Amino acid sequence: MPYLYAVQSSRLFAQGAVNTLFHLGITDLCFGSESGNIQDFISSYELLLQQQDTYNHTLKNLLKQGESFPIASREAYKKVGLDGATSIDLTKPNNILGFSYVREILDKQLPIRPLTIKRIKSDYHDTHIHSSIASATSIREAIITKRRSVREVERTIPSATLDQMEQYKSETDIFHDWENYFPLIHYRVMTMSPEELESILGVDEGLEYRLKRTAPHVTNFKDWMQAMKTKRYTWTRLQRMFVHILTNTKKRELELIRDHVPYIRLLGMTKAGQQYIRSRKKKLQVPLITGIGGQVHALLKVEERASAAYYSILSPTMRQQFLHQELEKPIIR
Amino acid sequence: MPYLYAVQSSRLFAQGAVNTLFHLGITDLCFGSESGNIQDFISSYELLLQQQDTYNHTLKNLLKQGESFPIASREAYKKVGLDGATSIDLTKPNNILGFSYVREILDKQLPIRPLTIKRIKSDYHDTHIHSSIASATSIREAIITKRRSVREVERTIPSATLDQMEQYKSETDIFHDWENYFPLIHYRVMTMSPEELESILGVDEGLEYRLKRTAPHVTNFKDWMQAMKTKRYTWTRLQRMFVHILTNTKKRELELIRDHVPYIRLLGMTKAGQQYIRSRKKKLQVPLITGIGGQVHALLKVEERASAAYYSILSPTMRQQFLHQELEKPIIR
Repeated sequence: MPYLYAVQSSRLFAQGAVNTLFHLGITDLCFGSESGNIQDFISSYELLLQQQDTYNHTLKNLLKQGESFPIASREAYKKVGLDGATSIDLTKPNNILGFSYVREILDKQLPIRPLTIKRIKSDYHDTHIHSSIASATSIREAIITKRRSVREVERTIPSATLDQMEQYKSETDIFHDWENYFPLIHYRVMTMSPEELESILGVDEGLEYRLKRTAPHVTNFKDWMQAMKTKRYTWTRLQRMFVHILTNTKKRELELIRDHVPYIRLLGMTKAGQQYIRSRKKKLQVPLITGIGGQVHALLKVEERASAAYYSILSPTMRQQFLHQELEKPIIR
Repeated sequence: MPYLYAVQSSRLFAQGAVNTLFHLGITDLCFGSESGNIQDFISSYELLLQQQDTYNHTLKNLLKQGESFPIASREAYKKVGLDGATSIDLTKPNNILGFSYVREILDKQLPIRPLTIKRIKSDYHDTHIHSSIASATSIREAIITKRRSVREVERTIPSATLDQMEQYKSETDIFHDWENYFPLIHYRVMTMSPEELESILGVDEGLEYRLKRTAPHVTNFKDWMQAMKTKRYTWTRLQRMFVHILTNTKKRELELIRDHVPYIRLLGMTKAGQQYIRSRKKKLQVPLITGIGGQVHALLKVEERASAAYYSILSPTMRQQFLHQELEKPIIR
């Protein structure tokens, strides 16, 4: 998924994901959710459609009063009868994302059948590993914050992933922790004017002044997040803003994804996948891109920049090597 | 001197220096030079004044042909009779700078008497230390490139400077070598568009494309300089450009120093200096600034940014400490 869809709230994320899959010709889309009942998603969508004005009006008012988006939308859902008792619970992260998928499919009347599987044993935001089924958050927490070795989470991830992660760590000596990026983000904010900061995606409602005011007093990323946090801004929203500062992504660049998914970029495939892609290729309504080099679409420039920022914390030679691999032809297995 | 005057070619550098000293009420200005004869500077100035049009015309043509500024100006000087035989040699770095001082004094008819002392035993760009008189270049080379301890250059610098340098090194474990800044400058260029780069001071004549083209292939600053170098661009010009990228200084910010020195910023003084400043204070035609905190002049924002960039390679706590010291009240001894 292009960076501009990936580092977004659920609605744009779902737009990018569902439409990319639609162009690739999928017939069914299955997602994990706390609910586990697809009919509840569909009836919730229909209820919301009928009450769209009430929902929007309530949401807008609450945001204006300084509530955070999650709290404002929870209240707005309640107002239209989506209170989690008779419908899906739209305060649960996987229900929220799944709901966005369903909404995108039904809004655009795409020929895709939505399906869902109930997540068991672990919430998305759960920070502890209880069994072999663990949330991504808890796995990251174990490896990065608690500095456990990858081996210690081995029962929670596929062995191929485990091997890849161990190899990456041994080559680069790094997992891409927020703290690794703190010096770069801090340097950038310290050397940008408030006006420049305001042009960055996610730097809204005067956050540029809050960034400039807090920066001189913080010495690590965690403290900075805490200094930035208010009732109005969720952690994930502030984190997205920091990613956009790191990658120097501008508000006006959102234009690039306004209308539709501009291309499909292939990172890797199996032989079976390759055959499928070949059979679809002629029917594709958007270009299929297999390597960034020489491409001119403006959105690919954003991809290049995001990749460069991602690898910028590696040693100069490692940086070069991984960036090259990232931008080259897809991997076929 | 404000950053915008300091990181410039000799003409603007001299404007900032001479006018700041003029406002402080100096009567004599003495500089070191390869020539050592002040009358030669003055007669060279007068000759150039008469032949200004020929000089400008020759210079412009040669620059258009792709010559570097030093070569073009040397030829233009020759053309008007300033060939170094009967006048000062304007290919020597300290003569060039001194000539800019003299020009500024005489152009503006300032009540300042220029004087010069002949530099002996060492050229400005000399990279070896031969005796107790050594060029700044050779001292930096010894400490940074050859990694000698500060003690090994002790006969070339005052003992107070030596102590300060040793203390700084023991506290921060760093001297501010170009290579220390490479990761930050590289990260910035990799995540900027050519259009953004073009807005930076010193990024002229398509250098933004050269920067973007060379960046993915270099792993240290020295290689990057070599990859950027052509006949047209001198090392010092490219270095100044890289400083402006590091500090995010925009072309339009030159406006801030267009008319005159906007203030005098006091970094430190002795008791005698303090008394002198007190006696001058009422006559000062520009504001005297003793600490950046709370100041609003736009040029001070550039100062703050430059200081932040300078210290950005230190550890987070050291960075905070030195930046605070830099922006606070002047030191009095």
